[in-house]
Amino acid sequence: MERLVVIKVGGAVVEAADSLNSLLTQFAQIEGNKVLVHGGGRSATKMAAQLGIETQMVNGRRVTNDEMLGVVTMVYGGLVNKQLVAQLQAKGVNAIGLTGADMDVVRSHKRPLKKVTLAAGEKHPETGEVLNQPTDVMVDYGWVGDVDRVDGDRLAGLVGMGLVPVMAPLTNDGEGHLLNTNADTIASVTARGLASHYDVTLTYCFEKPGVLSDPDDDASVIHHITESSYAQLKADGIVSGGMLPKLDNAFEALHAGVGRVIITSSEDIEGKNGTTITID
Amino acid sequence: MERLVVIKVGGAVVEAADSLNSLLTQFAQIEGNKVLVHGGGRSATKMAAQLGIETQMVNGRRVTNDEMLGVVTMVYGGLVNKQLVAQLQAKGVNAIGLTGADMDVVRSHKRPLKKVTLAAGEKHPETGEVLNQPTDVMVDYGWVGDVDRVDGDRLAGLVGMGLVPVMAPLTNDGEGHLLNTNADTIASVTARGLASHYDVTLTYCFEKPGVLSDPDDDASVIHHITESSYAQLKADGIVSGGMLPKLDNAFEALHAGVGRVIITSSEDIEGKNGTTITID
Repeated sequence: MERLVVIKVGGAVVEAADSLNSLLTQFAQIEGNKVLVHGGGRSATKMAAQLGIETQMVNGRRVTNDEMLGVVTMVYGGLVNKQLVAQLQAKGVNAIGLTGADMDVVRSHKRPLKKVTLAAGEKHPETGEVLNQPTDVMVDYGWVGDVDRVDGDRLAGLVGMGLVPVMAPLTNDGEGHLLNTNADTIASVTARGLASHYDVTLTYCFEKPGVLSDPDDDASVIHHITESSYAQLKADGIVSGGMLPKLDNAFEALHAGVGRVIITSSEDIEGKNGTTITID
Repeated sequence: MERLVVIKVGGAVVEAADSLNSLLTQFAQIEGNKVLVHGGGRSATKMAAQLGIETQMVNGRRVTNDEMLGVVTMVYGGLVNKQLVAQLQAKGVNAIGLTGADMDVVRSHKRPLKKVTLAAGEKHPETGEVLNQPTDVMVDYGWVGDVDRVDGDRLAGLVGMGLVPVMAPLTNDGEGHLLNTNADTIASVTARGLASHYDVTLTYCFEKPGVLSDPDDDASVIHHITESSYAQLKADGIVSGGMLPKLDNAFEALHAGVGRVIITSSEDIEGKNGTTITID
């Protein structure tokens, strides 16, 4: 089976000219089949502010009303995506930008009202009141999509033509609506969708060089994590907090057929010095 | 040779919900291979105004500075294109949105300074002064692209996969820059690029039902124009003014291999009651 790498880069990296250029140069050097998945939240927030549209985040996720959907459609699908594509073309990468609506490649449904437990100190999404204790609230995220399926066959068709898909964090519901969708999720479902066609590596680029055994020491990268070593790391309290959902998601992708998941920095997108996660 | 139709629709049609829905319903009903090319100038002007960016037009063409390039990239490549794609998906059309940067499908170069003759009554682009006689000015259109080539093979590859390209009026220079490009031109070069793969019909949708022998009478459509009848229509003064460059461009496309050009209204995109132009 041929190899393919799905690389997810966050908004911060693609939104600064210097780090973007370094990233795209590294990406261009990767041989063989590849897919880039990008964010763009900072640009969307900035553009919304310029248009006088308030950005509301609940639990780190953007509430997407009609106006904000227009903004993310423009910014993710247009500004960020097409600039990435044009710059990759200049580096000899035959990129093709896609949202989930293009080729109906990522189908989702509008997220129903969702119960979210907010921590003390966070703002109540409706009243704006600062909470003095953890509180359950029902949140309407608006035009946010939860993914139903990825059309891996069609994506593989493009890759087979020598093209490099560049995927924006937008999906569609098949009823004419675009939906704002988390880019980490797009990367994960895309990797799974391609796993029946390729031996897939799913790479998440962060600010940190990998999963650290000491969060204050960037040299403490744990280079390999398996399902059994993960259980031990959790039991020993070495891995905790925000890293747990990332690793849980990584194992989910592995169980769905992805060959390996890499957590690395955007200066090392091949993950040579990052953390590689496999089932065993 | 299989048939394929390239349909160009202007901004006014795609920017109003009612006419857009009628257009997309008609487009969905066209059987066989098809490509949609869209504009979006009104939306770009509106978005620019919301962002406090002034729109400058010279001879009906948009001057595209850095800020305006950002606007048209967002609006043409994101907002308009992706909404069209999502709505076509809902109508069962497997659309894929493209700018010229995607797959490097339309390569162009930045327009050099261009001598333009402005009519009396127009504004001088630099001084803003209203001209009291026809005046030659050198115009820097900024990030505007003049097309060098279309990759008809790759486009045909997508069409062969059962996909329907939806093309935004943006191209790329292969050096990392996006360029604002006239949508009529995109339609024409796309039709020519596909002419070695398909028997191509190139259709321009306007407000009028076709080429009229009496500009004040919408019932006076000339249903068929050939090269010899065109010469006669010009000699008799029946066709004149703004219709001449459109017809000259149509014959250029025909000589480059396009099977027929149709000029019709957006309520009749198959052009059953419009004007069909052929060489003989």
